[in-house]
Amino acid sequence: VVPVLRPFKLASRDFKPEDSKISINGHVFGDNKVIVIAGPCAVESLAQMRETAQAVKAAGAHLMRGGAFKPRTSPYSFQGMGEEGLKIMAQVREETGLHVVTEVMAPDQVELVAKYADVLQIGTRNMQNYALLNAVGQTNMPVLLKRGMMSTIEELLMSAEYIMSNGNHKVILCERGIRTFEKYTRNTLDINAVPVLKELTHLPVVVDPSHATGKWTLVKAASKAAVAAGADGLIIEVHPNPAEAASDGEQSLKPHRFDELMVEVGRVAAAVGRSI
Amino acid sequence: VVPVLRPFKLASRDFKPEDSKISINGHVFGDNKVIVIAGPCAVESLAQMRETAQAVKAAGAHLMRGGAFKPRTSPYSFQGMGEEGLKIMAQVREETGLHVVTEVMAPDQVELVAKYADVLQIGTRNMQNYALLNAVGQTNMPVLLKRGMMSTIEELLMSAEYIMSNGNHKVILCERGIRTFEKYTRNTLDINAVPVLKELTHLPVVVDPSHATGKWTLVKAASKAAVAAGADGLIIEVHPNPAEAASDGEQSLKPHRFDELMVEVGRVAAAVGRSI
Amino acid sequence: VVPVLRPFKLASRDFKPEDSKISINGHVFGDNKVIVIAGPCAVESLAQMRETAQAVKAAGAHLMRGGAFKPRTSPYSFQGMGEEGLKIMAQVREETGLHVVTEVMAPDQVELVAKYADVLQIGTRNMQNYALLNAVGQTNMPVLLKRGMMSTIEELLMSAEYIMSNGNHKVILCERGIRTFEKYTRNTLDINAVPVLKELTHLPVVVDPSHATGKWTLVKAASKAAVAAGADGLIIEVHPNPAEAASDGEQSLKPHRFDELMVEVGRVAAAVGRSI
Amino acid sequence: VVPVLRPFKLASRDFKPEDSKISINGHVFGDNKVIVIAGPCAVESLAQMRETAQAVKAAGAHLMRGGAFKPRTSPYSFQGMGEEGLKIMAQVREETGLHVVTEVMAPDQVELVAKYADVLQIGTRNMQNYALLNAVGQTNMPVLLKRGMMSTIEELLMSAEYIMSNGNHKVILCERGIRTFEKYTRNTLDINAVPVLKELTHLPVVVDPSHATGKWTLVKAASKAAVAAGADGLIIEVHPNPAEAASDGEQSLKPHRFDELMVEVGRVAAAVGRSI
Repeated sequence: VVPVLRPFKLASRDFKPEDSKISINGHVFGDNKVIVIAGPCAVESLAQMRETAQAVKAAGAHLMRGGAFKPRTSPYSFQGMGEEGLKIMAQVREETGLHVVTEVMAPDQVELVAKYADVLQIGTRNMQNYALLNAVGQTNMPVLLKRGMMSTIEELLMSAEYIMSNGNHKVILCERGIRTFEKYTRNTLDINAVPVLKELTHLPVVVDPSHATGKWTLVKAASKAAVAAGADGLIIEVHPNPAEAASDGEQSLKPHRFDELMVEVGRVAAAVGRSI
Repeated sequence: VVPVLRPFKLASRDFKPEDSKISINGHVFGDNKVIVIAGPCAVESLAQMRETAQAVKAAGAHLMRGGAFKPRTSPYSFQGMGEEGLKIMAQVREETGLHVVTEVMAPDQVELVAKYADVLQIGTRNMQNYALLNAVGQTNMPVLLKRGMMSTIEELLMSAEYIMSNGNHKVILCERGIRTFEKYTRNTLDINAVPVLKELTHLPVVVDPSHATGKWTLVKAASKAAVAAGADGLIIEVHPNPAEAASDGEQSLKPHRFDELMVEVGRVAAAVGRSI
Repeated sequence: VVPVLRPFKLASRDFKPEDSKISINGHVFGDNKVIVIAGPCAVESLAQMRETAQAVKAAGAHLMRGGAFKPRTSPYSFQGMGEEGLKIMAQVREETGLHVVTEVMAPDQVELVAKYADVLQIGTRNMQNYALLNAVGQTNMPVLLKRGMMSTIEELLMSAEYIMSNGNHKVILCERGIRTFEKYTRNTLDINAVPVLKELTHLPVVVDPSHATGKWTLVKAASKAAVAAGADGLIIEVHPNPAEAASDGEQSLKPHRFDELMVEVGRVAAAVGRSI
Repeated sequence: VVPVLRPFKLASRDFKPEDSKISINGHVFGDNKVIVIAGPCAVESLAQMRETAQAVKAAGAHLMRGGAFKPRTSPYSFQGMGEEGLKIMAQVREETGLHVVTEVMAPDQVELVAKYADVLQIGTRNMQNYALLNAVGQTNMPVLLKRGMMSTIEELLMSAEYIMSNGNHKVILCERGIRTFEKYTRNTLDINAVPVLKELTHLPVVVDPSHATGKWTLVKAASKAAVAAGADGLIIEVHPNPAEAASDGEQSLKPHRFDELMVEVGRVAAAVGRSI
């Protein structure tokens, strides 16, 4: 039984057989090097962001992540620092040279976020927010498109197609775990999605082991698995003091754990013919 | 084991013990009568919308549904008629007296859709589109909030809370089927959600048996089950010619099947002490 | 898209268009009457079983249930009273006239259980225990086959086919809830399965609202939904003192709640042209 | 939120902090070496089994697999060669020195299978077949216990506990993919389960990338991911002519693909400090 997929075109490997390469500050997704994006779930202060960025840079990360606009299940949870958070990341970029990946949550935020960010992230809850996909498709900025926690691989590709059909082909796909019956982990990392996507599409594929596990103790193993399976990059939550993080503390690594992770992931990358 | 939920306040039965009643054109959700919303998936033409509305009105439906902005998995599928579709529904409302439930997909569409519609529908893919929830929360129009296809009951209530915390308490919840491993039906109708929601919240609860099954042959049984379980309303796809529908033809009822459904659902409603 | 099913034959509606009727002590599954099986999860003592049986009989139940061999996730949980429990049920049958539905867990238990029981129940964990299916297929006793909590409708029918292909066509199918991501309820009652099964097979279909919800407060609504959707019967956990039940106390009804349920389910049954 | 697990004892890492080592013909599960079990889904003939065993041995596999009793969804599918198949494997063991892993499906088959096999496999559909778990627990043979396709990690450990509480501590756990909403792959490999199990239990953990993906093109990537994540072994379907296999042809590797896999997996094993 061969599953029949809906027709996606621009994202398809048939349409473009060779891997797409998307470069950010000289770091190329879809090439030999495994690109690592690291940083806190949410920007909380200049001090926190600076400390984290310096630590992850020292460990070898290539880009920094941090949320200024946070999609939270509850309206009463911390919603992010907004533009103030974007400014902090821009300043830390100045200081460290690490470019910025950050989430945009609504079409009318795109212009603002694009002013400060280097990569626009579409979060899992917005994978099928078509107005937002169209809006980022009309920029010429790289987009990190996270798989919906409830979405099939096919639907992820169709959402990439929304962005691309607007003219922006710089789409990086992100497997971040799916929702299943298993309750011990926050999500189930669909590791199969990595080789499936590499078959079906020419777009780069990164994995988010932090959300895909929900527990910092599992992040290193999941990162190594992702690279072994063929991922082009990783996006990892790191926080100087996870116990006091405004969100996602349980799944955030302390900097010294991230150091360890980079060393071990580097060995696996070498074993599959890549560098980090 | 008692599941621990995140704190939701305004939507909670503890906060407001009595059922909320939301009236649209004299039809009250959350009261004794089971309210039925019926119509095509998408508005396709004035003739199609008029024919459908006349038929469902004759069968006893209270409100009409129809999509002008359609969230489609593929960017290459029919995306709806847009404002033209809204105008058609407004005209058919004039002719039939049936008020209009229709989807709004982005914050900046709210003003336009609100000009023509009587109830703003938030679709399953947008249940956690917080900018959109905030935008409809800032209107004073009734909102039909569909459960995300892989969202928990708790998350549905938290999304209602987003709308309500903006000041708009006129939220109607809609169970429309969830995504599971079962492949024979398009979705799995989570019938348990009806009594669970009636315990946890004072908001009205309606069921969409069309999406929850994906097959017209199952819609009548699912509708009767929903009403037996305590649903305050139903939203049902009806099309004069399902085989040629622009979308969702497989799950749309022909008008004469809808007549039958109304009669049988009416009997079940009476058996649980309600009317239709 | 029409789902393609594996070929099942004897169980298929195509093979035998008319409903199969399976009679136990004059109560016929698959006919006009909705048959209700009620009793405790586990037999705990003669007093408990007698008290429960008298109560459910007074409320109008047609058959009694009770577990003597209990499939428990942990080897350290109560595993049932074994043959002693079977003897208790046989004695209570003498006293009340209620026939006995009870689970058999292994091929070499079939002979023993068949000595005391009137209906052999195959539990959810054993739906694909093919040696057991073959063993009960070689008896001429009615079999209540519960859907695996992880099994599709098609797989349920294929398991029925195992039993029937051994010569025993007296199979009653039972939808008892499936495992999904929703955590508020123990399982998700797949109410769609009722009309789907009525389309695909001639075999009677019953619903277990106790396991399908896991909470006694939801059992009545789920029971009414099941009957409204077309179920031929219900199997319900009732315990005189749920707080002290050896298992499943949370989902067991007290006798006076079961009385209420029978009255309300009776009204729904009448609304769909059946009696109880 | 720390998930609360049911108490498992003998299987717990707390009970026995050091890794359990289970040796079969000198190949030790739970030690430094990654153990590879390979062979066809089903034994079909002496020629097929011999050819496969020679090929996988040449590629470096340590044990052979092959099914003589096959749990098939349909009673009309090939059910395996039975004892004849066991004899074939025993003969091929003589010829190649590869010891035999094969499935046992019922308590009364245990004695027969144990006569020919070196490791008793409990299949995914029988993970909660407690009579069978007790039966293999009363032998002193190594048991390969496959996770139920919709069983939680906790339930897998509780099933191991059933075996161990009978006195047999030689249990090897196997993650073989779980059932989710994703339809492109046959199952979803729950790679998180590998590090979770290594935290919770001292028992060895192997991964079945063939069933966990359902497509031979994905097996190599999944195997590398499993070893990178910390798996102690792999169990892989190999067939000399997958297009004509009696079952599971789509997910079976041809011998030369298996050669490739062994080389690449060996590199990843070395990168995580292990050999193959």
